[in-house]
Amino acid sequence: MEENNENIKFQISEALIEQVAQLVDARKDDELSKLLNDFHHADIAEILDEINLEQATYIFKLLDSEKTSEILLELDDDNREKILANLSVKEIAEELEELDTDDAADIISELPEARQEHVIAQIEDAEHAADIQELLTYDEDSAGGLMAKELVKVNENWTINRCVKEMRAQAEDVTRVHSIYVVDNDGKLIGRLSLKDLLMASTKAHISDVYIPKVDYVDVHEDVEEVAKIMQKYDLEAIPVVDANKTLVGRITIDDIVDVIREEAEKDYQLAAGISRDVEADDSIWKLTKARLPWLLIGMFGGLGAASIIEHFNQDMGSFIVLLSFVPLIQATAGNVGVQSSAIVVQGLANDSIDGNILKRLFKEFLLGLVNGFAIAVIGLLITHFVFGTPYIVSITIAIALVAVIVMAALIGTFIPIFLDKRGIDPAVATGPFITTSNDVFGILLYFSIAKLILGF
Amino acid sequence: MEENNENIKFQISEALIEQVAQLVDARKDDELSKLLNDFHHADIAEILDEINLEQATYIFKLLDSEKTSEILLELDDDNREKILANLSVKEIAEELEELDTDDAADIISELPEARQEHVIAQIEDAEHAADIQELLTYDEDSAGGLMAKELVKVNENWTINRCVKEMRAQAEDVTRVHSIYVVDNDGKLIGRLSLKDLLMASTKAHISDVYIPKVDYVDVHEDVEEVAKIMQKYDLEAIPVVDANKTLVGRITIDDIVDVIREEAEKDYQLAAGISRDVEADDSIWKLTKARLPWLLIGMFGGLGAASIIEHFNQDMGSFIVLLSFVPLIQATAGNVGVQSSAIVVQGLANDSIDGNILKRLFKEFLLGLVNGFAIAVIGLLITHFVFGTPYIVSITIAIALVAVIVMAALIGTFIPIFLDKRGIDPAVATGPFITTSNDVFGILLYFSIAKLILGF
Repeated sequence: MEENNENIKFQISEALIEQVAQLVDARKDDELSKLLNDFHHADIAEILDEINLEQATYIFKLLDSEKTSEILLELDDDNREKILANLSVKEIAEELEELDTDDAADIISELPEARQEHVIAQIEDAEHAADIQELLTYDEDSAGGLMAKELVKVNENWTINRCVKEMRAQAEDVTRVHSIYVVDNDGKLIGRLSLKDLLMASTKAHISDVYIPKVDYVDVHEDVEEVAKIMQKYDLEAIPVVDANKTLVGRITIDDIVDVIREEAEKDYQLAAGISRDVEADDSIWKLTKARLPWLLIGMFGGLGAASIIEHFNQDMGSFIVLLSFVPLIQATAGNVGVQSSAIVVQGLANDSIDGNILKRLFKEFLLGLVNGFAIAVIGLLITHFVFGTPYIVSITIAIALVAVIVMAALIGTFIPIFLDKRGIDPAVATGPFITTSNDVFGILLYFSIAKLILGF
Repeated sequence: MEENNENIKFQISEALIEQVAQLVDARKDDELSKLLNDFHHADIAEILDEINLEQATYIFKLLDSEKTSEILLELDDDNREKILANLSVKEIAEELEELDTDDAADIISELPEARQEHVIAQIEDAEHAADIQELLTYDEDSAGGLMAKELVKVNENWTINRCVKEMRAQAEDVTRVHSIYVVDNDGKLIGRLSLKDLLMASTKAHISDVYIPKVDYVDVHEDVEEVAKIMQKYDLEAIPVVDANKTLVGRITIDDIVDVIREEAEKDYQLAAGISRDVEADDSIWKLTKARLPWLLIGMFGGLGAASIIEHFNQDMGSFIVLLSFVPLIQATAGNVGVQSSAIVVQGLANDSIDGNILKRLFKEFLLGLVNGFAIAVIGLLITHFVFGTPYIVSITIAIALVAVIVMAALIGTFIPIFLDKRGIDPAVATGPFITTSNDVFGILLYFSIAKLILGF
């Protein structure tokens, strides 16, 4: 049984990619099929992402659609688009026949509008086609947009015996049986049955005697992030989806939710880093620029705003021109505190671990700002006076400004995400450059205002 | 079947929490049990997190351990610690009897060292205790630290009939049967069997005739992040864990991996925001300060470094003192570009979507920096000259410095995470304040150096 070992190679080597490319170029179809059939479809997708489009398309047409349909799902978005453009409508329909409805709908929605209907028309299995078409009608961020039509459902009036028979037929279409859903004669969801219970029940019993009437479900229009929270909270591996009449219309499995969680976390992280759309390191310079430049422009206008504040105060600063040297200190501190405060609030909102009491939270951040600010101010006071040799009164001014700026940045960083969340806007957009920029401007304004007050210039 | 509706209340109301607290204070045990038994353990945990410790402990002792053990898993870390401190060693052992080995081991590892052995000694089921003790020996970031001992395994020499019988016994201990693992007489993992296959096979067949010899598995010492990547890549809902002899020692399920993925993403996000340890909005001010102050200090030293650079150039700047007004612009731009570049690299490294060619990536960031820098520089040139009225030569100086600073920040932001990753250090520590601070200092140094070169002061 030594063949198991091949499964543990999770990294595709350069040598293997080279070998595949050479086999394609030499048109050695048999060797190629033999080699690739030993690999998992996710590994083949990785290989196809590394070779050129013509080579990838060749392999795609060589392998059978049972394998290529799975490969299609794992390819990089850009590569999938290019390979699909090289396939005929009929060929795409054949791929979709092999896929679960949710995956098939995802692929169709990536096609140009004009092609979508032609592809659906070519799908031979009419029920499969109708299911896919239904899924395409839902918003992609709703439970309906994430669910699959494939599921195992049994009628409450069946016996266990009939249930096992019917399930054998249904299970052929369902890759993984998580739960068996129990419906009444109208197709309404009334409960569930675990495979374990089924395995352990007498064959003559009726479903209505053994099923569990407690079942979690979500509405077909529920937001996917909410579905993710529910499935995580209740540790569910699958959840049934119902329409307004409680009719069972689909099922969402945990592997789809894993993608939602990962994408959501990546999006928050990118927003915090000032990247406005979903990009990857491998994207084109043009696409990366479109994602990054807008935030740089916001930062630039903040910087220019700060410049005009400095210009304004500069005129009457006289001998206190040394204050200008500490602008970067004020700015860096305000920026860092703002990002810290907003990140904690954004994560708290995402986890539902923050309650609605905004005043309590602001008061806590105020105290936190005072503690942090005092620590930073004392160190700043000592260093500016003893290392830089600034007069005491200037060092004290800087220290007081640091406390004020830290408290202000903590309050702004806390208030803005909560405010946006209450308004129904994703609070993650507030983190990163947006808060940094407003803190830059207000921080510098506060610094010079305090200096003017104390030093009286 | 209208009772289903109660499951859809995913939010706990203030009124319910108040009601529970009052029932506890009035010692109305029957009403309390009746009320709480209708709720999912995750919901009860949410209620316990909201009421005071004495009330929570009271409920904990009231409900039976089948329910409280599950509640324990869902409580906030801080609350769990406090409630466990209020329970006797015997009571804790009773909770652990009810839990799967992986969850039980997690709870024990949170106890004070001195209590751990006493609790294990009180667990009645000797096998359960031994399993838990074994799990405690593995590193918490390894597959062994994440896996559970509960799994369904069958011998290749059994018939389907015997297999079903043995499974019924084993399945009692296993919450969810994902896959049936097939072992040889030595306990070595040799393949798997799906429940579906079992359902559809003849009862007289031998396991060795029907099992699938291809099975993915991980080593007990494998890093959990690597396990998460493998399970996501191959869309696995469970993966068996083996030791160096390929003996089957445990199983990891996707719900544990969901936690790993979420925690990893949250950690990266917090590091990017300059928060050095796992904290939540509800933590104490002291804990939050310890997580935040170190980064603020790094930022402060950067700011002081920038101050000394400015002091140095300031002396001979003369009429070009206006340059000081644009320090915030330079600083904000350098900071933003650095964070953007590093975030993309960190995510790429986390997804394995970045290959090792560091020069290629730096060249791409160089080009990207030129494109973004040129756009920012042109706008900056126009605004500083026409709005601020700075002389052309100064505006041109600022524009050239912007391009240089953006390219520099992009290169530093790309290089540092890749460098750290190659050294085996988590690249996420590089994002956030660390890169922002070094870009602040180098950016300002570059700015004044370029100005000195062009303006000749």
